[in-house]
Amino acid sequence: MGQETYWASDPSELLRVREGFRLDEVDPRGTPGIDADKAAGHAALAEGAGILAELQEKLYAGNQMGDDPRRVLLVLQAMDTAGKGGIVKHVVGAVDPQGVHLAAFKKPTEEELAHDFLWRVRKQVPAAGRIGVFDRSHYEDVLIGRVRGLAPPDEIERRYGAINAFEAELAASHTTIVKVMLHISMDEQRERLLERLDRADKHWKFNPGDIDERQLAPAYRDAYQVVFERTSTEVAPWHVIPADRKWYARLAVQHLLIDALEGLSLEWPAADFDVAEQRARLLGS
Amino acid sequence: MGQETYWASDPSELLRVREGFRLDEVDPRGTPGIDADKAAGHAALAEGAGILAELQEKLYAGNQMGDDPRRVLLVLQAMDTAGKGGIVKHVVGAVDPQGVHLAAFKKPTEEELAHDFLWRVRKQVPAAGRIGVFDRSHYEDVLIGRVRGLAPPDEIERRYGAINAFEAELAASHTTIVKVMLHISMDEQRERLLERLDRADKHWKFNPGDIDERQLAPAYRDAYQVVFERTSTEVAPWHVIPADRKWYARLAVQHLLIDALEGLSLEWPAADFDVAEQRARLLGS
Repeated sequence: MGQETYWASDPSELLRVREGFRLDEVDPRGTPGIDADKAAGHAALAEGAGILAELQEKLYAGNQMGDDPRRVLLVLQAMDTAGKGGIVKHVVGAVDPQGVHLAAFKKPTEEELAHDFLWRVRKQVPAAGRIGVFDRSHYEDVLIGRVRGLAPPDEIERRYGAINAFEAELAASHTTIVKVMLHISMDEQRERLLERLDRADKHWKFNPGDIDERQLAPAYRDAYQVVFERTSTEVAPWHVIPADRKWYARLAVQHLLIDALEGLSLEWPAADFDVAEQRARLLGS
Repeated sequence: MGQETYWASDPSELLRVREGFRLDEVDPRGTPGIDADKAAGHAALAEGAGILAELQEKLYAGNQMGDDPRRVLLVLQAMDTAGKGGIVKHVVGAVDPQGVHLAAFKKPTEEELAHDFLWRVRKQVPAAGRIGVFDRSHYEDVLIGRVRGLAPPDEIERRYGAINAFEAELAASHTTIVKVMLHISMDEQRERLLERLDRADKHWKFNPGDIDERQLAPAYRDAYQVVFERTSTEVAPWHVIPADRKWYARLAVQHLLIDALEGLSLEWPAADFDVAEQRARLLGS
């Protein structure tokens, strides 16, 4: 269950989408696997950050010396305000930026729309030794794509299979895939949107379109439910994270990354040069 | 001189390359502008990190809402072990990764070599609202390019002018350019290379080629001296940072970024929607 000391039971297991999973049965205020308050949660986050940073350095090191081809891909999906940005800033932000490849998928451009939906996604796959982070992803094409009818139903239908094939191909090319949906309640979303409206330093985070999307929340939940049923696979399972408590969502995603990296049994790579010889050369220089 | 409380005099001024600058007169162990020890230096870094993070968020916000076209580009140059990686991790790493574009320039590929030396560099210019970081840069093409004769002398000569034209163009398109050379002594470099050889968890950072480069240090210093004389311009001045003390180098680069951002007089952008109207919509949703 990892080096962390604060989990009572493994959130990777507790949060994984399995046969029979129902999104509407998840409590967005829950904290599965840990009994803590906000202060204890932040202390745990700081401990986890150190663990994650060292694992990430080993992943990167193994590629820099030894050409280890392995990589990790974190896929982040969520409704607005659920905390994707906070995950990027506070969880991913705790590791060396050199080893991270972050891709934010916004509304597709004309050029992107002229290609298959996976075209722009494939270009952002992390290089070996890196942790890739998708802030939104190819799942938008079966979420907003479905809810707003941006593509014909048979094309949407085709995409689930295409996604599974794409992810299987990634897994076969040494990519550990961590898929996360941050699940926030309607009440908590209202509070967070209100805060963005009530604070001048948060206005830039607000978009009137967020309320349009909010009004479609039931349709989005249905679309997510289909996503979980069709694309939670052995090599790329989904995890649904209760996200009303920011500290919990961050801690849980941090754990999933730690877990993914520990699963690789990373070691510092052996020197590919003669250490004594180089030491002598250095002292003579 | 900025919001920071710990500088006795402005390092932006003290470290700037001016007419008559001589690299060999810079003391790599110096701490211009501050009288502190390592512990005080780290406390200062933590204070500065908060200041930098808020400024960066304002830069990003102004672009997200209001299309502010401004951006900042940090160019990092140094001999091996001087601490570029530490700057990226500890100074740049303290701001939101969403607002940062990091580009590490390694040995050019075949495709890159088939183009003008600025081709690969132009592709990495940060987007509006971002802080771009070049870990090595177009200056390699007049540093290693010159020292190892990777291009004919007249081509090297041409490049200084091409660089100045490129940077003037960047400045004209709203880019604040911060150019930094981290200056480390030969003794400190030996210590740091020894540490990489003596610790198994540091072997991956060592490359026998680092000693070859070290043996060429006098030629590199000459090449840097020429760079400073030819490319320290009004819109893109160089700063030479004493780098034997890691805390000082980090603090100084952090200050240069803070200074660059403060020079933009950033404000939180005004809402481009009617706040009261959106508030009413939200409460009804």
